[in-house]
Amino acid sequence: MKDQTMKLYSMPSSGNSYKVRLLLALLGRDEVPCSDVEYGSATLEQAHAHKRLPFGKAPVLQLDDGTLLPESNAILTYLGHGTRFVPTDPVTQAQMLAWMFWEQNQHEGVIAVRAALRSYAHRRADATPERLADLLTRGNALLQTMDDHLATRDWLVGADVSLADLCLYAYTHTADTRGGYDLAPFPAVLRWLERIRALPGYVGL
Amino acid sequence: MKDQTMKLYSMPSSGNSYKVRLLLALLGRDEVPCSDVEYGSATLEQAHAHKRLPFGKAPVLQLDDGTLLPESNAILTYLGHGTRFVPTDPVTQAQMLAWMFWEQNQHEGVIAVRAALRSYAHRRADATPERLADLLTRGNALLQTMDDHLATRDWLVGADVSLADLCLYAYTHTADTRGGYDLAPFPAVLRWLERIRALPGYVGL
Repeated sequence: MKDQTMKLYSMPSSGNSYKVRLLLALLGRDEVPCSDVEYGSATLEQAHAHKRLPFGKAPVLQLDDGTLLPESNAILTYLGHGTRFVPTDPVTQAQMLAWMFWEQNQHEGVIAVRAALRSYAHRRADATPERLADLLTRGNALLQTMDDHLATRDWLVGADVSLADLCLYAYTHTADTRGGYDLAPFPAVLRWLERIRALPGYVGL
Repeated sequence: MKDQTMKLYSMPSSGNSYKVRLLLALLGRDEVPCSDVEYGSATLEQAHAHKRLPFGKAPVLQLDDGTLLPESNAILTYLGHGTRFVPTDPVTQAQMLAWMFWEQNQHEGVIAVRAALRSYAHRRADATPERLADLLTRGNALLQTMDDHLATRDWLVGADVSLADLCLYAYTHTADTRGGYDLAPFPAVLRWLERIRALPGYVGL
């Protein structure tokens, strides 16, 4: 029997899941419950077995009719549609998506991966000094790209906060504590992180 | 002085650039010129030096007012806006974006990377047997995900071709010739590739 209410399958420690929880909080949508999943747990295996995770990963948003929507950034666009977090101008909207694709193609594969290698016991075998050093160099270059861009503006695109900011906040705001990156050389990024933390309704990871 | 016409900075051998050229061809937009860039070439360095490639990568779409839009999939959404390639229903549109984020986060980092390791002389040092074997296993799992999904439908989302199909076609249609993947175990993928090749206006890589 299908479960017929909107629900977020969310992995508590994951930045990809957190970015959706952050948007839900900023939108005041307390009515959407979260169902926690953990990799390797019976809960996740059960969820996967029941085809609740189409790409085998959290987060997944279950819609009211039972439709399952995977991919954190696609979920953001769905929930953000028609809100202040999605610019209406087509060019600004495309620029927002450009940062979000960059996040999934570049930023997450470096900064989130270095954090995972340092945090999760089952990833420790892959955490060689060479790999951690390479991810440090590449991550610093990505943070520099963000810092250069934010040096002259408050938000990544347009004149207001957008999904691009929430999306990139997720793994950037723990780049120091989890990823081992020094954020001091990126003052524009640090100011931007504070700006997001000050948004009404903000919740932490 | 700014160059004030729409133009695509495109890398001829790259699937990410090709997917934009394919959409332009299917839309019959022959008026948009392509400016070829090659990594390591004077042309690319010059383009980069002139800040024509915001993330240091092709493709980049230059708009009529000089705005530079990076990221292949963001360019697709911009050019596809209001055409048959973008579903109007918000759920189907979000599902389209889910496949496009999956392509950049999973598919491209495996299938396109294996092709690059086999094709480009400067990548050969990274092309260890272990790495190629790992990318083969992971790529086959990704192709299986597509095949399972396409077994019961003609297109990745909705009832018609969308940007999700064009996006994933780019690196899937050369997975055999460039990536060294055997596509025979994925008959639904093979039929879907044929469906895309049959679209009016289709151009090859």
